Amino acid sequence: MASSTGGGSALTPITVSMELHTHNRRKLLRCLRQRLLDSSRSIHGFVLLQGGEEQNRFCTDHTILFRQESYFAYLFGVKEPGFYGAIDIASGRSILFAPRLPEEYAVWLGKIKPLSHFKEYYMVDMVFYTDEIVRVLHDLCDTPGKPSLFLLYGLNTDSNNYSKPAMLKEMEKFDVDLEVLHPVITECRVHKSDMEIALIQFANDLSSEAHVEVMRSAKVGMKEYQLESIFLHHVYMYGGCRHCSYTCICATGENSAVLHYGHAAAPNDKTLHDGDMALFDMGAEYHFYGSDITCSFPVNGKFSKNQLLVYDAVLKAHDYVIASMRPGVNWVDMHKLAERTILEGLKEVGIIHGDIDDMMDRRLGAVFMPHGLGHLLGIDTHDPGGYPKGLERPKEAGLRSLRTARTLEDGMVITVEPGCYFIDALLLPAMEDADKSKYFNHREISRFRGFGGIRIESNVLVTAGGCRNLTNCPRRPHDIEAVMTGAPWPSSPAA
Amino acid sequence: MASSTGGGSALTPITVSMELHTHNRRKLLRCLRQRLLDSSRSIHGFVLLQGGEEQNRFCTDHTILFRQESYFAYLFGVKEPGFYGAIDIASGRSILFAPRLPEEYAVWLGKIKPLSHFKEYYMVDMVFYTDEIVRVLHDLCDTPGKPSLFLLYGLNTDSNNYSKPAMLKEMEKFDVDLEVLHPVITECRVHKSDMEIALIQFANDLSSEAHVEVMRSAKVGMKEYQLESIFLHHVYMYGGCRHCSYTCICATGENSAVLHYGHAAAPNDKTLHDGDMALFDMGAEYHFYGSDITCSFPVNGKFSKNQLLVYDAVLKAHDYVIASMRPGVNWVDMHKLAERTILEGLKEVGIIHGDIDDMMDRRLGAVFMPHGLGHLLGIDTHDPGGYPKGLERPKEAGLRSLRTARTLEDGMVITVEPGCYFIDALLLPAMEDADKSKYFNHREISRFRGFGGIRIESNVLVTAGGCRNLTNCPRRPHDIEAVMTGAPWPSSPAA
Repeated sequence: MASSTGGGSALTPITVSMELHTHNRRKLLRCLRQRLLDSSRSIHGFVLLQGGEEQNRFCTDHTILFRQESYFAYLFGVKEPGFYGAIDIASGRSILFAPRLPEEYAVWLGKIKPLSHFKEYYMVDMVFYTDEIVRVLHDLCDTPGKPSLFLLYGLNTDSNNYSKPAMLKEMEKFDVDLEVLHPVITECRVHKSDMEIALIQFANDLSSEAHVEVMRSAKVGMKEYQLESIFLHHVYMYGGCRHCSYTCICATGENSAVLHYGHAAAPNDKTLHDGDMALFDMGAEYHFYGSDITCSFPVNGKFSKNQLLVYDAVLKAHDYVIASMRPGVNWVDMHKLAERTILEGLKEVGIIHGDIDDMMDRRLGAVFMPHGLGHLLGIDTHDPGGYPKGLERPKEAGLRSLRTARTLEDGMVITVEPGCYFIDALLLPAMEDADKSKYFNHREISRFRGFGGIRIESNVLVTAGGCRNLTNCPRRPHDIEAVMTGAPWPSSPAA
Repeated sequence: MASSTGGGSALTPITVSMELHTHNRRKLLRCLRQRLLDSSRSIHGFVLLQGGEEQNRFCTDHTILFRQESYFAYLFGVKEPGFYGAIDIASGRSILFAPRLPEEYAVWLGKIKPLSHFKEYYMVDMVFYTDEIVRVLHDLCDTPGKPSLFLLYGLNTDSNNYSKPAMLKEMEKFDVDLEVLHPVITECRVHKSDMEIALIQFANDLSSEAHVEVMRSAKVGMKEYQLESIFLHHVYMYGGCRHCSYTCICATGENSAVLHYGHAAAPNDKTLHDGDMALFDMGAEYHFYGSDITCSFPVNGKFSKNQLLVYDAVLKAHDYVIASMRPGVNWVDMHKLAERTILEGLKEVGIIHGDIDDMMDRRLGAVFMPHGLGHLLGIDTHDPGGYPKGLERPKEAGLRSLRTARTLEDGMVITVEPGCYFIDALLLPAMEDADKSKYFNHREISRFRGFGGIRIESNVLVTAGGCRNLTNCPRRPHDIEAVMTGAPWPSSPAA
């Protein structure tokens, strides 16, 4: 079989400074103190977070490769399992608690590092063992009575799960607050610092390059998973990315209409056929910070007329949204802009007909794009903070899939991922629906049964003056076709 | 950067027949009925297993790529999460229970497959939904009173965890037995069928080839993880192996003395240096069945004198053990044979001196090889069944690390993985120890501080007449050196 990922890379892993997490802690302190002042509470107590533990697979001793819990990663950047971390709210001192490892660890798992190693490496003020938490926090507390602990407890609005607050054996020796911390730290995570943006940019640079490598490697007769393998290899080999932000979606043909294809029950195992569209949604993670990029392209390297019709509509939506993004713009409006653009495109080529405003009122766009336009991106692919307290999730079809309905602010990183899909489970009922049926050109649309879908997804930073697209993949059809025949990308070094 | 994994492959994924799992169920039925007869119990009731569920990462909606629970995989081969499976012990009929998926599944995760799909694909007699388990099992039961359920509950002797028995809402409608099933099914898993062996052989062929690719790619200045990436890419790209049997251990230099290097706290991130030994322990998994292979080689492609001394001792141990393996041979004796061979090798070159029998009595071998010689291999890397009831784990140093102390039987697949390591945490205390100090040539051994270790690991099938090595990696030093300069492997097509 032919060589793969022979393309090499222009990139090498960038240096990560733990100063990034010091900065995150300082920001949290500032916001938390303000929050306490606003509610006339005293500025004392500790933030206490529990890092993740390594997990075994079911009853076996097979260990699942550990990836740190995201809030803990945000504040401390610790890659090892079994840690706790605290911040003294009055003094601002940061404290890590490391697990006390048994002697055998040195034989099986590596040299046991002294506490001083972690203090220096993670740039915290103090390090103790996890079995010393209660004593240390009591010693550090200079107010009378039980020390206050601010623990992380709150709803993740994407999973509908609650974060698990840190657990201690002697929790009764503390005053515990479960309310204050979660919204404050979540809001901190929404606005990215320059150091955070640099990591997301690197994950984007690397993943954009890997997407191009995948496009160039795609050939009729390959398996979808082979292209997944090429992507994974590229980002690990050249960028040191051991983790991706999510399971790769490598969908071709009909599968490209399955929004979250690629999971264990649909494991990227179809053969690529001539005439298939490919929809590849893949992103590397670098030091916890991720990327989330989708490219859609024809498997055989040449857009068909039908593919081009749909692609152009989605690309317009992608470009119009990015051209409109700036602080103060509401994300629901951007979703509607994307929807309207796609509907106009479909109308132009005769797939649908009628009044676009009426279609918008009847939520016809949700038939073709059932997912939200995009989501906050950071340490989690679906970064938290999309619905802070008081902001309601829309109820209308399509809009209710939005992972945020916020107004854009400087420093947010958000995905722009309009898509247009021909999904039987949505299209067939809509074509029978009394309200919606009239908009469809039933004969035209039948040509698109089995077409799948197209999504174009970039990661965009909102800036004071507008926004900046962090993703750099070929998007125009002729650029995609050129790259797939081996043309260089970026097409000029300055691009 | 130079091209990687340009070597391609002579292999393509093999076809898997679900007949394999039908065979596993038939074997379980035979053994279970015998077990019930032996204890004068009637042959009725159901085996009921619960398959694994997909997990989210902490509180987020990030889904961890699902891999089926191993006992469930053994009996049913189902790759999807959320299933239950039953076997009617009297009739032998097999029943799968599939999760009833919500309508939105079709939009987000793929077409909802009809029950008939699973019946045909997984070759079972009946398929229902999981919410029908209680009713179906009652309907199928033709004896008076509550139907009996045989659930999986027992100790995994490697993790010391207990398997979690299937859970149902109305368990009180059944007579539940937690004793009988686990030892019987575990014993079934110990002896591999021809179809199981074919999968383990394929995983070995593919992983052996990938190890050779890694050896050829290794260069001073690379990162360990780049070689991990080359391995992972090779087995996925050419063999369709999305999972490996365990996290890759890609250890060079000192790290090669860390037996389970490569985990999140020691993530294969060292740079390869001239003069380093590499110890790479990596194995692909194919349709649940795994491989577990270690190659040790000099990073610069040329064994130094010291490296050769230690390597030769380990290779002799590896070869002597395989030459001695056949049904009836006890695995503890094989461990001791490996130990003795290594000690003799170390004595020959002057690292240790004295009487080998005395050293064996004092368990000196455990200083250089603290792990067991090998373990059963199958759907789990550390396959269960190493210590059936009544077989005690040895208590002596080194021997107590053995994951099995069984006598070899036809159809067992077991790893042969002797190693010799210079681990400060073991060596320094031993050199101070009143009983052991005299055996060490303290000046000679100091030359090996920081050397790391060497392990050679093959997967061996015990046959009626002896055994068969399923692994095919270059083992002799001159073969390794030749392959690393580009010589073909296998060296002749017949090899």
